[in-house]
Formats: sequence, structure tokens, C-alpha cells
Amino acid sequence: MRVLYHLPLSPFARKVRLVLAERRLPFELRLEKVWERRPEYLELNPACTVPTLVEDSGLVVPDSAVICEYLEEAYPDMTLLGLNMPERVESRRLVKWFDEKFFAEVTRNLLWEKTMKQALRLGAPEAGALRAGYANLKQHLLYIGWLAEHRRWLAGENLSLADFAAAAQLSSLDFIGDVDWSVSPAAKDWYARMKSRPAFRAVLADRINGQAPPPHYADLDF
Amino acid sequence: MRVLYHLPLSPFARKVRLVLAERRLPFELRLEKVWERRPEYLELNPACTVPTLVEDSGLVVPDSAVICEYLEEAYPDMTLLGLNMPERVESRRLVKWFDEKFFAEVTRNLLWEKTMKQALRLGAPEAGALRAGYANLKQHLLYIGWLAEHRRWLAGENLSLADFAAAAQLSSLDFIGDVDWSVSPAAKDWYARMKSRPAFRAVLADRINGQAPPPHYADLDF
Repeated sequence: MRVLYHLPLSPFARKVRLVLAERRLPFELRLEKVWERRPEYLELNPACTVPTLVEDSGLVVPDSAVICEYLEEAYPDMTLLGLNMPERVESRRLVKWFDEKFFAEVTRNLLWEKTMKQALRLGAPEAGALRAGYANLKQHLLYIGWLAEHRRWLAGENLSLADFAAAAQLSSLDFIGDVDWSVSPAAKDWYARMKSRPAFRAVLADRINGQAPPPHYADLDF
Repeated sequence: MRVLYHLPLSPFARKVRLVLAERRLPFELRLEKVWERRPEYLELNPACTVPTLVEDSGLVVPDSAVICEYLEEAYPDMTLLGLNMPERVESRRLVKWFDEKFFAEVTRNLLWEKTMKQALRLGAPEAGALRAGYANLKQHLLYIGWLAEHRRWLAGENLSLADFAAAAQLSSLDFIGDVDWSVSPAAKDWYARMKSRPAFRAVLADRINGQAPPPHYADLDF
């Protein structure tokens, strides 16, 4: 069985979980505490990040962006990038937007400060980081709302990897109750559509160390 | 004529300049001072980063990773990722390694602190960042050397995007005289092979604000 090494709140692992489910590719999840730097894991992925995918053939594919490009080429029955060049450019542009810009400006400031930093006993959350994270999240929600008002899905007419990249970041933040959905009704409506996809079910059923997310997290009509 | 918006020391713009030259795709370079946030440029690339490529057809392709995937699909006469899945995974893994890990651990600490920060009058270089940058650079040179000793090119038997991603980061640092090549003779030998490629010529001829790089920068036998 295909194996995906992950951490439950990693937005990059969530992106790949969503994409594998959307593509109906079964996989087994394995928790990888990357901070322990297990030698066996370092051999699979020298950067020691999650996720890493291991195929039945033994092929090891580290890094969420590398995995998503690999899946697009290895399972061409479904494309999540688009059928023509302008669509593929726009999907990939937005994937980078959410993987890099949204992550650096929002997710790292909130999720890292409020969960990982405390779990690893690296100190209390920094007030400045939290303030920046919430302010940036508002701007990003407005941008997502703007895209959702002008297009059927974030990158255009078709559902794409951009939707999963954005939803993955937001679902991690939503799990810790950090998303004020009232900022943008259009973004909320788009996210409700994402949550109601079958591919989202497993992510919505997540419990972490027995901890449940806020009630609206798994509510399709939040 | 195809246009590439760039900054001369941006390792990401350099990666695309090298790849376009390797693919023999002619282009015109245009300087984009991203910190000025020109409205016309924000329309091309809302993330306001360099590089951005504009094709003759008018197609706008922002972001070096998006551009390199686009070129691979739009000009399939040459592949810089490899012909089979394991090669493509390994090329992309290393591209991410240099674009993200090498950049965050080395280039940002040295190049940002020593050039951009001063140019934008954001203060003097931080001693801690410089120390970390030089220490990390040594480890990265040893890793490049290890790869070059075990393989013909960094990702395997064939020259790939991984070589250009690594060479682009290093050429920016070499321009400001920050690379101690004595750390790894194997890395130095690999970089000498990269420098002697015709695709490297324009990058080696760079002058920035009339400033010349150290003499060994353009020397093929340094």
C-alpha cells in the first residue's frame, strides 16, 4: 500500500492528502515527527520535511510540490493543473501563492507560534507574529473571495490544485479556530464547496492527540 | 521578443536566464525594481517578485518554478527534468532543495544582508545572519561536492534543472565574492563545468551599476 508520511496539522501534508483522495489513490498515513530526525526518514527525504510519498514500486517522492507534479505525470487520467497553457500557468501561480506567500505571511505566524513552538518548548507565541498573521489572513481571505467572485474555482473554470493548496492552508488554521470566515462571504462559500467534496472527508474527521477541532470545523454548513 | 523581468542578483531570475539560454530561447532582459511596486508590474505578477516571463503571444508566466515547468511543457524538444519518473523526481527534489533550503539558509543570510538591505537603507548586515550564512554555505558546498562525486551531474547521469538551480544561487554569491571554493574541490570542479557552458556566458558578463565582480567570477579556470 502507498504510504504518506505526514504531520496532522502540516498544510503541505494536507494538500497531498486532499489530492490523493480527489484522485482516488488509496494510501496509508504514517505520522513522522520530523524534529526527531529519524535516520531512516532522512534517507527517504534529506530535507526532513513532511510529506513524503512512498509508492508501491518503492519510488520515494519527497516534498508536496514534487509529489503533486509527480501525480500529475504518473496518473494522467486526471489533471488538476488544467488542459491548456494559460490554465496550467494560473494554477501553478496560485499554488505557489498559497504554498509560499500565504504560508509565510499567515500559517507560519499563527500555526507555528500557537502549536509547534509550544509543543517543542521553544517559548510562548510572539505577539507581533500573531498580530501580523491575523492581519495578513484578512487580506488573503479578501483575495480568495475576490477570485471566487470572478471565477468558478480559484484558478478559473475548473477545480485545480490551487483550490487544494488554499484549502489545505485554511483547514489547518480552521482546526485551531483561527479563521474569521465573516471577513469574506465569497471565500466562505468557496470553502464550503471544498469541504463538501468527498476528498475532504478524512481531513474533516481528524482528531489530534484526542483533541477535537471547534464544532464548525467539520460542519459543511458553517 | 520574449521579455524577462529580472534583478541582476536574484538567484531565481538567474536560474531562468540560464535555462532560457540552455534552451536557446532568445529573450530581452528588463530590470524590475520590485520594491517600487509598479502598478503595471503588479498586474503581471501580483506577488511582485522576479522573474516574470512574457511570451510573444502575450502569455504572462510569473515565478521561476512556474516558468521552468512551463518551459518544460511548452518546448518539449528538450527536457531538463529527465526522461523517466525517478530522474524527474530527483531533479525536482533538488530544485526545491536549492530554491528553498539553500536560499533560506545561505543566500538570504548573505546576499540580502550585504546588498539589498543596504541598498534599501534597512540597516547594516546582522552579524548573526552572516555567521549562519557562511556556516550553512560550507555544509551546502560539501553536499554539492558529495553529489558531484557520486554522479555525473547533481541529479544523476544527465544535466538537469537541479544543476541550474544550484549554479544560480552560487553565481549570485560568487558575484559578491562570498564563496570559498576551497571547501570542496568536487563542488568547484562541477561549478567550473557549469561556467564553461555557453548558457553561462551572459551571466558571467554581468556588471551591476558599473560594479565588476571579483576576477575569479568569470574565470573558467578559477
